[in-house]
Amino acid sequence: MESWINIPEDTDFTIYNIPFGIYTNDDVNNHIATAMGNYVIDLDVLHKRGYFKDVDLPEDIFQSRFLNPFINLGKEKTNAVRLRLQKLFIKGSTLEKDPDTRNKAFLNRQDVQMLLPVNIPNYTDFYSSIEHATNVGTMFRDPENALLPNWKHLPVGYHGRASSIVVSETPIYRPKGQVKDPSKNSPDFGPTRRLDFELEMAFITGKENKLGDPVSTEEAEEYIFGFVLFNDWSARDIQVWEYVPLGPFLGKNFASSISPWVVTLEALEPFKVASPEQTPEVLPYLIFSGNKNFDINLEVSIQPENSTEKTVCHSNFKYMYWNINQQLAHHTVNGCNVKVGDMYASGTISGPTAQSYGSMLELSWKGTKPINMPDGSSRVFINDGDTVIMRGHALKNGIRVGFGEVRTKVLPAKK
Amino acid sequence: MESWINIPEDTDFTIYNIPFGIYTNDDVNNHIATAMGNYVIDLDVLHKRGYFKDVDLPEDIFQSRFLNPFINLGKEKTNAVRLRLQKLFIKGSTLEKDPDTRNKAFLNRQDVQMLLPVNIPNYTDFYSSIEHATNVGTMFRDPENALLPNWKHLPVGYHGRASSIVVSETPIYRPKGQVKDPSKNSPDFGPTRRLDFELEMAFITGKENKLGDPVSTEEAEEYIFGFVLFNDWSARDIQVWEYVPLGPFLGKNFASSISPWVVTLEALEPFKVASPEQTPEVLPYLIFSGNKNFDINLEVSIQPENSTEKTVCHSNFKYMYWNINQQLAHHTVNGCNVKVGDMYASGTISGPTAQSYGSMLELSWKGTKPINMPDGSSRVFINDGDTVIMRGHALKNGIRVGFGEVRTKVLPAKK
Repeated sequence: MESWINIPEDTDFTIYNIPFGIYTNDDVNNHIATAMGNYVIDLDVLHKRGYFKDVDLPEDIFQSRFLNPFINLGKEKTNAVRLRLQKLFIKGSTLEKDPDTRNKAFLNRQDVQMLLPVNIPNYTDFYSSIEHATNVGTMFRDPENALLPNWKHLPVGYHGRASSIVVSETPIYRPKGQVKDPSKNSPDFGPTRRLDFELEMAFITGKENKLGDPVSTEEAEEYIFGFVLFNDWSARDIQVWEYVPLGPFLGKNFASSISPWVVTLEALEPFKVASPEQTPEVLPYLIFSGNKNFDINLEVSIQPENSTEKTVCHSNFKYMYWNINQQLAHHTVNGCNVKVGDMYASGTISGPTAQSYGSMLELSWKGTKPINMPDGSSRVFINDGDTVIMRGHALKNGIRVGFGEVRTKVLPAKK
Repeated sequence: MESWINIPEDTDFTIYNIPFGIYTNDDVNNHIATAMGNYVIDLDVLHKRGYFKDVDLPEDIFQSRFLNPFINLGKEKTNAVRLRLQKLFIKGSTLEKDPDTRNKAFLNRQDVQMLLPVNIPNYTDFYSSIEHATNVGTMFRDPENALLPNWKHLPVGYHGRASSIVVSETPIYRPKGQVKDPSKNSPDFGPTRRLDFELEMAFITGKENKLGDPVSTEEAEEYIFGFVLFNDWSARDIQVWEYVPLGPFLGKNFASSISPWVVTLEALEPFKVASPEQTPEVLPYLIFSGNKNFDINLEVSIQPENSTEKTVCHSNFKYMYWNINQQLAHHTVNGCNVKVGDMYASGTISGPTAQSYGSMLELSWKGTKPINMPDGSSRVFINDGDTVIMRGHALKNGIRVGFGEVRTKVLPAKK
């Protein structure tokens, strides 16, 4: 597919992608858009001018603060919109010959503000990377029994906080909380000294099941709309004190950051790869067939204040032990109901090598291996003023589909 | 205050209560209502006929599927509505002399269906009863060290699933899941054999804080709109296998049940009592002043299919070690933001005696002490066909304010 739109060679937003997001600027109050290169393309403008005529869409569907009403139309409609956009972006299309509409619909990325793309009714975080779970188990428990007995039988997950999920470029404050020094009898209160990122991907459901009705591994993809990059911010010292016996709470819920463009499952189809072998064999409800992992290159950079960025991690989404079909089947096997816009993060995506670990906890091995920064400083965790940037893209046979980035600056704790 | 409305002597819905809920029937599609005795009173009818004229409310505020837009008006408005209703229900009021409006607004409870009262963006479950935490710690860990080291320093909590919270009279299916028999090497899959209730209360926030800005113990009550009864359904065998290291997930998220009427914080003010002494002393951000516990009698009954009910638990909300001001201050001390409609359950409310334990796990002491039912059967956990009923009310100087009930029938697992 060759497009008439001028886009940079290494862009994540090619004609094979066509993600969905929400933008605002001085003239427009929250419209649904797609991206091509550095252009943000207002779908409401295209719709008003008849470019989706035969797709049969509600008139104001693209005038929305969130993607939820659009996603709720169902895959038949949302896929039709995506395929129509591809057609319109191919050389020789009617849109190419309509400069008036193009001038109105095509905006420059730097002239708009991207907003949180979905209203997130529920957020779940899995723990599905065997390398990450093994690293954490080795550091905090027992290298000989790093994985807990349940880990290879089910995709361990827990509920997270939906309200504090923010979009890329939203700065966050260093959180305060209770920290217990092992040498002391009681906890102290103050800003976390172990602020960390976790490199994750998240999928978003686009269809509801009824309470009581599980979604099988086979049906799972009907329920999955798309993906974003996900930074699961963690305050390690707060978490380690609070998390027994009911799991992480204030060590996580101060903020999570996501990328603004939702890349559809359909755009990622070409990048599916085989999943790792699972031994012991899983229970029947977790059995799946076909390629269910995704070959998506991921990286994390840290940019100290007034300095340049340094890439500290190269990982890949393909390393996941538990895939998204298994995650959704497990989540609903007890009848739990999912909503349109619900988000499911993967858990930290660590790979097999020390450079592919998806958190500072692992990269600095619990603070014992500092990482040098371009400004001469070093990091074991994240400092005030640092900006953490995650990027992700798939590449195959010269075709690139990516997520752009999720970029977050850490501000000092509030007084 | 003497009312002209004819209400049963032992009703929870007196003129001192004035709770808010959502009803529907063949004629009316989701209106906000209050309750007096067995009457459900449509506030939209009263509003249309000018009874809230000087409160300055949006015209359609009571035509809503959820209470959220009403709550979002703020306490000044919602309290004014509640006080106006009290005035209208007092002997000699204009409403008493307006039979036409009364006939239209007053419905019989049995003629309407009560709906889930709030849209719940986020749900948190605490673990704040020292008796419950001690019982569970004694059973599963070490009687000598029943409480984990963090328990007396912070109100332990975790995020739960908002999507599967249902209103009273919604039947639930017995959930299936992975269960690991200690004598076996790997888990089995099937319906839970240890379905349990947890007797809890939940508060609902009615005001938002900004991400990054904590709510202090002193400010907490400005943010709390009201309370409901909360049955935190638990599948003990699923939970015990899955919950390490990240907390409960499928053992909880198949369903939680709440009562339909939201009783305001203001209605419960007269029933405040002193909180239990906290030793060791808490950190400064958890210090509070004044009476912050509530003397609310709670009970749980089980009604086997085709039989009468048996009360298995008498407890009281006043037993909570951590109070709601501390819970909200802790939840937000890291900057976590709360939304209108968020729900915060207390954790199982167990008292000091064996008859006051708030779960079958404790009442049957891990299945070792069966409880006899009126039909000659016995229970250690909940059987298919059982209906679990929780009730709660406060009573002081002859004044009664209560919650009615949350009533849930358990259906057999789906095939």
